[in-house]
Amino acid sequence: MAGKVKVGIIGSQFEADIQAASFQLMPDEAEVVAVASPTRGHAEALATKYGIPRVFHDYREMLGEKDIEMVTIAAPNYLHAPMTIDIANAGKHVVCEKPLCMTLEEADEMIDVCRRQGVLLMYAEELFFTPKYVKAKQMADEGALGKVYLVKQSEKHFGPHADWFWDVERSGGGVFMDMGCHGIAFCYWFLGRPKIKSVLCHMGTYVHGERTQGEDDSVCILEFDGNATGMVENSWARRGGMDDRIEVFGEGGVTYANLHMGNALPTFSKYGYGYAVEKAPDTKGWTWPVFEELWNYGFPQEMHHFARCVRGKDEPIATGEDGRVVQEVLLAGYESARTGAKVELPFRPTGVKRPIDLWRNPAP
Amino acid sequence: MAGKVKVGIIGSQFEADIQAASFQLMPDEAEVVAVASPTRGHAEALATKYGIPRVFHDYREMLGEKDIEMVTIAAPNYLHAPMTIDIANAGKHVVCEKPLCMTLEEADEMIDVCRRQGVLLMYAEELFFTPKYVKAKQMADEGALGKVYLVKQSEKHFGPHADWFWDVERSGGGVFMDMGCHGIAFCYWFLGRPKIKSVLCHMGTYVHGERTQGEDDSVCILEFDGNATGMVENSWARRGGMDDRIEVFGEGGVTYANLHMGNALPTFSKYGYGYAVEKAPDTKGWTWPVFEELWNYGFPQEMHHFARCVRGKDEPIATGEDGRVVQEVLLAGYESARTGAKVELPFRPTGVKRPIDLWRNPAP
Amino acid sequence: MAGKVKVGIIGSQFEADIQAASFQLMPDEAEVVAVASPTRGHAEALATKYGIPRVFHDYREMLGEKDIEMVTIAAPNYLHAPMTIDIANAGKHVVCEKPLCMTLEEADEMIDVCRRQGVLLMYAEELFFTPKYVKAKQMADEGALGKVYLVKQSEKHFGPHADWFWDVERSGGGVFMDMGCHGIAFCYWFLGRPKIKSVLCHMGTYVHGERTQGEDDSVCILEFDGNATGMVENSWARRGGMDDRIEVFGEGGVTYANLHMGNALPTFSKYGYGYAVEKAPDTKGWTWPVFEELWNYGFPQEMHHFARCVRGKDEPIATGEDGRVVQEVLLAGYESARTGAKVELPFRPTGVKRPIDLWRNPAP
Amino acid sequence: MAGKVKVGIIGSQFEADIQAASFQLMPDEAEVVAVASPTRGHAEALATKYGIPRVFHDYREMLGEKDIEMVTIAAPNYLHAPMTIDIANAGKHVVCEKPLCMTLEEADEMIDVCRRQGVLLMYAEELFFTPKYVKAKQMADEGALGKVYLVKQSEKHFGPHADWFWDVERSGGGVFMDMGCHGIAFCYWFLGRPKIKSVLCHMGTYVHGERTQGEDDSVCILEFDGNATGMVENSWARRGGMDDRIEVFGEGGVTYANLHMGNALPTFSKYGYGYAVEKAPDTKGWTWPVFEELWNYGFPQEMHHFARCVRGKDEPIATGEDGRVVQEVLLAGYESARTGAKVELPFRPTGVKRPIDLWRNPAP
Repeated sequence: MAGKVKVGIIGSQFEADIQAASFQLMPDEAEVVAVASPTRGHAEALATKYGIPRVFHDYREMLGEKDIEMVTIAAPNYLHAPMTIDIANAGKHVVCEKPLCMTLEEADEMIDVCRRQGVLLMYAEELFFTPKYVKAKQMADEGALGKVYLVKQSEKHFGPHADWFWDVERSGGGVFMDMGCHGIAFCYWFLGRPKIKSVLCHMGTYVHGERTQGEDDSVCILEFDGNATGMVENSWARRGGMDDRIEVFGEGGVTYANLHMGNALPTFSKYGYGYAVEKAPDTKGWTWPVFEELWNYGFPQEMHHFARCVRGKDEPIATGEDGRVVQEVLLAGYESARTGAKVELPFRPTGVKRPIDLWRNPAP
Repeated sequence: MAGKVKVGIIGSQFEADIQAASFQLMPDEAEVVAVASPTRGHAEALATKYGIPRVFHDYREMLGEKDIEMVTIAAPNYLHAPMTIDIANAGKHVVCEKPLCMTLEEADEMIDVCRRQGVLLMYAEELFFTPKYVKAKQMADEGALGKVYLVKQSEKHFGPHADWFWDVERSGGGVFMDMGCHGIAFCYWFLGRPKIKSVLCHMGTYVHGERTQGEDDSVCILEFDGNATGMVENSWARRGGMDDRIEVFGEGGVTYANLHMGNALPTFSKYGYGYAVEKAPDTKGWTWPVFEELWNYGFPQEMHHFARCVRGKDEPIATGEDGRVVQEVLLAGYESARTGAKVELPFRPTGVKRPIDLWRNPAP
Repeated sequence: MAGKVKVGIIGSQFEADIQAASFQLMPDEAEVVAVASPTRGHAEALATKYGIPRVFHDYREMLGEKDIEMVTIAAPNYLHAPMTIDIANAGKHVVCEKPLCMTLEEADEMIDVCRRQGVLLMYAEELFFTPKYVKAKQMADEGALGKVYLVKQSEKHFGPHADWFWDVERSGGGVFMDMGCHGIAFCYWFLGRPKIKSVLCHMGTYVHGERTQGEDDSVCILEFDGNATGMVENSWARRGGMDDRIEVFGEGGVTYANLHMGNALPTFSKYGYGYAVEKAPDTKGWTWPVFEELWNYGFPQEMHHFARCVRGKDEPIATGEDGRVVQEVLLAGYESARTGAKVELPFRPTGVKRPIDLWRNPAP
Repeated sequence: MAGKVKVGIIGSQFEADIQAASFQLMPDEAEVVAVASPTRGHAEALATKYGIPRVFHDYREMLGEKDIEMVTIAAPNYLHAPMTIDIANAGKHVVCEKPLCMTLEEADEMIDVCRRQGVLLMYAEELFFTPKYVKAKQMADEGALGKVYLVKQSEKHFGPHADWFWDVERSGGGVFMDMGCHGIAFCYWFLGRPKIKSVLCHMGTYVHGERTQGEDDSVCILEFDGNATGMVENSWARRGGMDDRIEVFGEGGVTYANLHMGNALPTFSKYGYGYAVEKAPDTKGWTWPVFEELWNYGFPQEMHHFARCVRGKDEPIATGEDGRVVQEVLLAGYESARTGAKVELPFRPTGVKRPIDLWRNPAP
């Protein structure tokens, strides 16, 4: 086909909104023509907000639309695998939100089906497109830091809004599953995708124990081939709005990038204002508002890239294979959190339905 | 016409490069099809770098190209007026770099000719598009700061690269002319374009006296209708790379936005790397690299907007009239720097060939 | 005499509290043995808080105490001169809070009486002792910045607590009188006390017009011998707690020092806590708490130094002569604010009772 | 005894210099009267610099000085225990630099001998006195952060100057031994000294493998009773000068304190200047100079406190018992680094001569 890539979105909440907004911000390669969500009114609301012409309540119906070439999944984690398979079988390219799925079996099948159907499986890891982080990688790749031996990424806030995140049946885990996947992917990508040797993880539920069985704070240490370490810190228990930062240490230098406090407009307001930043509790008093939040995260650039991949103009730089690597680390991380010991990779547990079970409810 | 707006650039140096890069970064509304520069090889080099198909050594020849709808001026200040008039008379829309021109007579004629020819005179004040500053204005407009009584803007570095900036015959003045125009426009725009009552200015040549007759450091205080003040600080004598920042004070709050130290990745490098920031002296040791510099200044957004104006999709938000207001303040500022006293507006000096003459070489 | 210097404090409010606390923090050279305040209960409260043994309701009685060698004045500005003269005539050394007085006639008399009585007139400009600012001066004096051409100091908050500051009869002026005196002294001291050539000042009452006739926002530009400029910005209209910062620009470098946002512990608190910083509005939400505030301002170091001067161990580095220089600039600043023009120094207006009158109520 | 506490220092290098300077900065409780160092000329140099009247080349001779009441140990780690025992047996109070010693057997004996001899064993953990960190603890203790669940401390630079640190025979370990001890003590103290349940540690030698067998980068996770975690990060491989920071996370808030980049005067210097900060590589270009470094670390306050303890005016807040707790964690940390698994406490390995052996050369 020619012209703009026609896109369908599955989902209507936070992530779907980000996707729809992102396609609008960089409109030259793609356009959203349909949205599917089972909850009455939700898809309609998104469609109205972004001028999306077609609305579906069953995403399978949307897959029947001939002109749609790419479908994005912004649905709870446990649905990623079955949806991906359906989309691929309908002959359409897939953009799957993070984390890729629940199990390695699912990951393998997702990759396999897409390959067989000749469609792309693109993994929506926006940190590969975050401009400030990309600059850090460019400097490191230019040799600014010498040999890099430690990459840190941290993402913290006070917990997600949507209910399904708190229900480990649907999410597969807590903050490590939700946001740890970003940091794992980030360290792996930053270092040039070396083999991961081991995973060490510490986690706990400190604040939200009444609301979830999932962990709300975690730290994960990755050993990579080539004598490098990754460190991933996450929290759903950090007050004060979103925090997202990296630190990169090399033999010859160090760089720090902070997406929020390090980019914001320190502001005091007696009266408040519209919007400060994702998950911010208030806009009165001192706040750290950010600007062009989606762009600074790289969402529009990411979706733009995926559309170009569909047209063959780019090669995907965030793929199902990346998601599968992350998935293995997630599983190993929960296992490590239970045993208190390093888990060597490859790690392929059997009979696991969701990652968090390795920590909370290990198989007998 | 339909399709993308075809653009011709006059100039081949720093500003022309920014323009060409900007059109590439947001390619959906416009494309650069020609570049004109009198210096042998310069236009060719830019054309090669950005894939611009047509090259001219006399911009007047370029104006004969029928399909070109918009021409941008990235030439020394003293050429802005004659070029604008030529472009307008050729029936093409004009994008004029800052400052608008040398005298109010020129400003009036530029505006007049464009109006008569039915073309747009768009004034390239990128701070109206700088995302971080736009966020500050949004918050202020939402009432976050209550009644705003003081807006500050400052832009400082260690001096421009191109020769003509240092030659007041061609530039019309030093740093106040070069960068003060940004701050004046910014305060005026931020406050909603109120009438400017008076201008007070202090300036001096502290560091570069052997190289220029122009001032290399200035501070300017503007009184606006509605009991608000603007404060504009500029320097060509500030070491350490570019600095660009605003502060906005209201009865109900305050906000600070810093485009460089407040957005950067604090980095230490033993070995150095490709690029830190405009005018940065070095990339070894500690530096403050920025990311996506053009986007963070708003250049692509600005050019994108101007192309949309040509197509009638937007109304210009930075016009020749804005440039004329700035021009009057520039003239008043140099006058104030000489007398050491506030200059009331309107101020229309006669017989002035360039703004700086009011400070250095006043008419007898 | 030998042993610790015995000190009497005149005053019992904010400044007196700072002084009493400061003597306790560096106790090896001095001890506060008496406090005098006319308001019933006030002196007693301070005495109780700091274990001060003697309390007076008329400071003149306190001056009769033989063992007291040094008296500090923490009283409204209009009392500085008569109190200084009384203290000197009682044969005791004087520490006078800033600004020195109301008129140049008073300044001259204060200096003269102290000289004749053989006592020290020490001027409590704590910025000469502020450790972070002292570091800036040390670097500059070591040549780090090359020739310094611009020194900026700014102090801003939302207005003082004590009533007398708002009453220009007792204070002599608004924020320029209250805090501008700090910045004037700072620039003068930082540059090595060069002759001041001219003063240019812009001020207004933007927020607190119902409460005071004084200005609540001001900017002042000083021209110094040796081609250097000072810039002093002050506000009683800046929300969000105290702000105190400097910027120093030299031909060879630049340094920034921020006492609050640049020293604080960025903190989010849902529940609040004891104390964030002077003039802070709240301790919930995001705040910028500082630590060891008095020490970071240099108050204990200042009082310690003054006590050492009394013992002949140090030479005073902040004197009545410094205060007189500041006083002349204050007067010139209000004059400039009225005329909108630079005032050349020396400036000795006649018949002026308080500095602000030159701006608000000039003599006919 | 009365009057100032007379102090003898063992050592003459970096730490001894800090101690001598610290006693001078707060001189009202103690004075250094002697210094002992075996290297010819070293003790003399320190004595000259700080006006210390007596010099010894064998610290045992210094212990014969009757008037000395307190002796500070600024010697390599492996000498801490024998020196402490000698000092105690000479009837003098001990200030021992961190870490306390090499083994738990030594720790027990040091504590025991001091108790039997009736002298104080004070442990020189300056972070208990670091003003900015103390402010964080005050806020947390006031409830600002609600229940604290995570305390992080990090200290990083590019490696120590003195040779013995690199020789694990004398140091007992690398950066985890050298600086990890600070973070362990800090988390323990911040949380109110709860029981430590387990230790998890990851370390490696990334940059200085040619110079040392010790690790040059480490991260350590502590589990405390009461559902709280400590995280300690250290490096001898971080370029750009000293870095020391904490982060504290509670259910109700978060606070960040950065002693260097968060306190400094961002400075650009073309010419350089005297001193920026501990371990800084250069003073040209951009640097982060700090001010009053010793005071901001709390060294003078610490020594002042120890002298007051000798006089019975204070109770020691950093004791041999604290050092013993840290020592156990150090041992457990090296064990964990070897096994890759959590080590439960209490942990009392036998036959260990130095902590690092548990990682590098475990007993067969």
